[in-house]
Amino acid sequence: MNSGCKKNESSRISDGWVRKVQLSLPSLQDNTADADRLIHHLRKQFETNHVEIDLELLRTLPSQLRQWHYAANCVVIRKLDGDHWYVLDISDPNADKLYLGVAIDLGTSRIMIRLLDLTTSELYHETAFDNPQLSVGPDILTRIHTCEQPDGLEKLHHMIISTLNHEIQAVCRSCGFDSRDVYLIALAGNTSMTHLFMGLPPRWMIREPYIPVINSPPVKKASVYGLGIHPLGRVLIFPNIGSYFGGDLVSGILYSGITSRSDPAILVDVGTNAEVVLGNENWLVACAGAAGPALEGGVAQIGMMAGPGVIDRLSIDPVTREFSIQTMGGLRPIGICGSAMIDLAANLFLAGMIDFRGRLIPETCGKRLVTKAGLAHLEIVSAKASGSGESLTISQTDIDSLIRSKAAMFTILETVTESVGMTPEELQRFYVAGSFGVYIDPVSAVTIGMLPDLPTDRFQPLGNSSLEGASHVLTSCQSLLAIQDIKDKITYLELNVNQVFMNRFSAAKFLPHTDRSRFPRLKRS
Amino acid sequence: MNSGCKKNESSRISDGWVRKVQLSLPSLQDNTADADRLIHHLRKQFETNHVEIDLELLRTLPSQLRQWHYAANCVVIRKLDGDHWYVLDISDPNADKLYLGVAIDLGTSRIMIRLLDLTTSELYHETAFDNPQLSVGPDILTRIHTCEQPDGLEKLHHMIISTLNHEIQAVCRSCGFDSRDVYLIALAGNTSMTHLFMGLPPRWMIREPYIPVINSPPVKKASVYGLGIHPLGRVLIFPNIGSYFGGDLVSGILYSGITSRSDPAILVDVGTNAEVVLGNENWLVACAGAAGPALEGGVAQIGMMAGPGVIDRLSIDPVTREFSIQTMGGLRPIGICGSAMIDLAANLFLAGMIDFRGRLIPETCGKRLVTKAGLAHLEIVSAKASGSGESLTISQTDIDSLIRSKAAMFTILETVTESVGMTPEELQRFYVAGSFGVYIDPVSAVTIGMLPDLPTDRFQPLGNSSLEGASHVLTSCQSLLAIQDIKDKITYLELNVNQVFMNRFSAAKFLPHTDRSRFPRLKRS
Repeated sequence: MNSGCKKNESSRISDGWVRKVQLSLPSLQDNTADADRLIHHLRKQFETNHVEIDLELLRTLPSQLRQWHYAANCVVIRKLDGDHWYVLDISDPNADKLYLGVAIDLGTSRIMIRLLDLTTSELYHETAFDNPQLSVGPDILTRIHTCEQPDGLEKLHHMIISTLNHEIQAVCRSCGFDSRDVYLIALAGNTSMTHLFMGLPPRWMIREPYIPVINSPPVKKASVYGLGIHPLGRVLIFPNIGSYFGGDLVSGILYSGITSRSDPAILVDVGTNAEVVLGNENWLVACAGAAGPALEGGVAQIGMMAGPGVIDRLSIDPVTREFSIQTMGGLRPIGICGSAMIDLAANLFLAGMIDFRGRLIPETCGKRLVTKAGLAHLEIVSAKASGSGESLTISQTDIDSLIRSKAAMFTILETVTESVGMTPEELQRFYVAGSFGVYIDPVSAVTIGMLPDLPTDRFQPLGNSSLEGASHVLTSCQSLLAIQDIKDKITYLELNVNQVFMNRFSAAKFLPHTDRSRFPRLKRS
Repeated sequence: MNSGCKKNESSRISDGWVRKVQLSLPSLQDNTADADRLIHHLRKQFETNHVEIDLELLRTLPSQLRQWHYAANCVVIRKLDGDHWYVLDISDPNADKLYLGVAIDLGTSRIMIRLLDLTTSELYHETAFDNPQLSVGPDILTRIHTCEQPDGLEKLHHMIISTLNHEIQAVCRSCGFDSRDVYLIALAGNTSMTHLFMGLPPRWMIREPYIPVINSPPVKKASVYGLGIHPLGRVLIFPNIGSYFGGDLVSGILYSGITSRSDPAILVDVGTNAEVVLGNENWLVACAGAAGPALEGGVAQIGMMAGPGVIDRLSIDPVTREFSIQTMGGLRPIGICGSAMIDLAANLFLAGMIDFRGRLIPETCGKRLVTKAGLAHLEIVSAKASGSGESLTISQTDIDSLIRSKAAMFTILETVTESVGMTPEELQRFYVAGSFGVYIDPVSAVTIGMLPDLPTDRFQPLGNSSLEGASHVLTSCQSLLAIQDIKDKITYLELNVNQVFMNRFSAAKFLPHTDRSRFPRLKRS
């Protein structure tokens, strides 16, 4: 995913973190100190009362300012929750100096980092790698329990920091850059991962009433966390809304631009949980609920994350019931990813191979219906055609699980929209984040009643919106106000699993829904 | 100067840096993070948007808050130049915990430190010691030149830090306390000394246009400077107004209360320079000028700083011309301090032993007039009576020098008062800071025309106002607003040595003044 390591000086960003200043010269009549002279200038420029210069920088500031005739490029950063600015470095305004930023999407399973130019926003490099904490436990819960053992937190903290150091160094080196030219890291992750990054105990996040240590981490020096970039470089961590609504989502909201819209839009991110945000320029409602595993390919025995040989598209001829399969890299199939599971369920339903409750119908499934370990399975790929030498099958249990997940998803969407007096069908824009958003076929998702029956062009995949939001922060001072705006506006809707919710959930457990009139698209097909 | 090392829990200060909080308990309905819960509470209490908690504290905060049922004592500090607060520590609200503060007057020659209780403002201990940098050079100029040699700045910085560490440890130990219970240091010193304390290059302060590195140092962790107190303890350094108007003066202004007065008052501090501040609740005018050495006892060969055997009071019978001498500790005299020099000049004048130009009159001086190294000297103490075995004498040159100093002092006072349309005689309150203020006899000073002829009760000695101001900061959050207020209000008057100044200076070089009508007191005597 290297997008080229050239440095392009073409377009400097006026909203960026590197600012050119020309100060008035000191005189007997104007004997303001060097630091205060720069601070006064920046105060005016930023329309703020609070600008601070690091002590380390003060030691060299006087001679540097004199050398450059009181002109300089200043690298600045502001606090998230107030108009308080810091000057990280000053440099010769006539030198061709590099100012780098690193955006990080700190996922539970995968981590993505992106190297950008702070002044031109040019993308130099991007890389993805496994979260080293996977070796402790694939899920967050195991890791949090590990933190409760002696030195457990330090171990997990150190794992993530040393891996990030290694990867940031490598990314810089691959472009011929020095990591000491990295001034700013913007990090978005779920609440647990950002706590482990900061070395903060996540213990109380998994116990009722599920309280994080901190919602809005302060902007701190990278060295405080042990990260080796510029000695005065800072880390900006996206704030979370709660233990189950992390900074990665806030970053996604920032990237989606929902808060600039006049008409409401929704953003859905499906991972271990389904996280949903609905809003516009005036308000935001967020909620998170367990709806994910089956959709992420984590429930079916043959379910897999996207990768070579994994089925990512599937269709069934409704007349001949012939299966048509597409794998990543065109290899022999070895598993099926979440989006193809949705294709599968939709196509089985349209071909009459499962009924409206999701039950496999022996008459239409025919010879594909086999018995494995005493349970009815549907064969997707025969042993001969598969890449593993074994047939790929799904059980009735797998389908039931998928249907529960899709029902939970739809119920969450209904609950969130209902909380603001809307129905899911009224949504003008439906953003789907993550790889799920990239791979999912909205038509399949609508067919099984997981997503509301909207015109296809209203669905929009966002890609890695968490990484995109973090990248945006690296080149825009204004973006921090937008983050604060998101945090201030957002109302977190605690999913109350009460009778109303259960009734909705029960109604959504049918294909596509008990109330077929809500899925007019299906009548047309 | 030990004022007793007992701990007194009687009166806690509501304006102090230690605050009791009781937070609402978290619940499913109120899932705000622990840190943000505390921050929101303090924001309300302090009516501010900006409260930050140190990362190190965040690691223990969740378990501590739960242990204490979300009640705690919080140690806080705010920035000088904005309503930005930091939480340094939280502790069990039911435990008998000690919270200490250290006030420092960082003088060029002497350093005074005072150990206080942050919650009761009780004074535990006070000590004074020589500035270790005296070994490099007695005056600031030598030290600044030393900074320009390789590692010179680091050496001077290290000297002051290691001595302060040693003395703070000793003071705490002498009271049976641990220096890790010191949370706040308030430090007042002249601009050069505070720069050396911070390790900042003073190079440009002695070169036109005399620019310091910084006027308003940020409030930083003591560990940043290498001071060993509480790991998250902070140092608050008084801001300076320029290279020659330091934080010690700002601290003195704070202590004097000038800025709370409706009618103007003046504050005079005589050290190497004479520093003068005139103002009231609405405005402040400051200026500094060379007027000091002779007044500090630094010019006459027998001049000395106050100490055992030093003459601190002197009078001459105007009829018999008998000398009456008082020494510190009642010892045999070995030298004379600045205030007694002023007594001497006033008494010589009143006894007709010097004329109105300060010339020794042979007829009235009689046998006290001796010749030393070919110059006319007046014998103050005979060789037999002195503590050194040698006679104590002053030369005509010494007297001339004293008269130049007193003339400079009066001219500065005239210039400052004239700048706001007043005369020195209109001053309702005249504060005199430092040991000079404690020892000086205002009647003598008026007699020689160094100070204006005001009723004696308008003169008020302030003692070590720099140390007092620093002590005040340790127990009052509001005091930081007052410091900022002083900084905002003050106008620094550059002493323009022009013809007007020189004319005034010439007129003031007579005893008491060319215009005797300005000193009516003298007519009465």
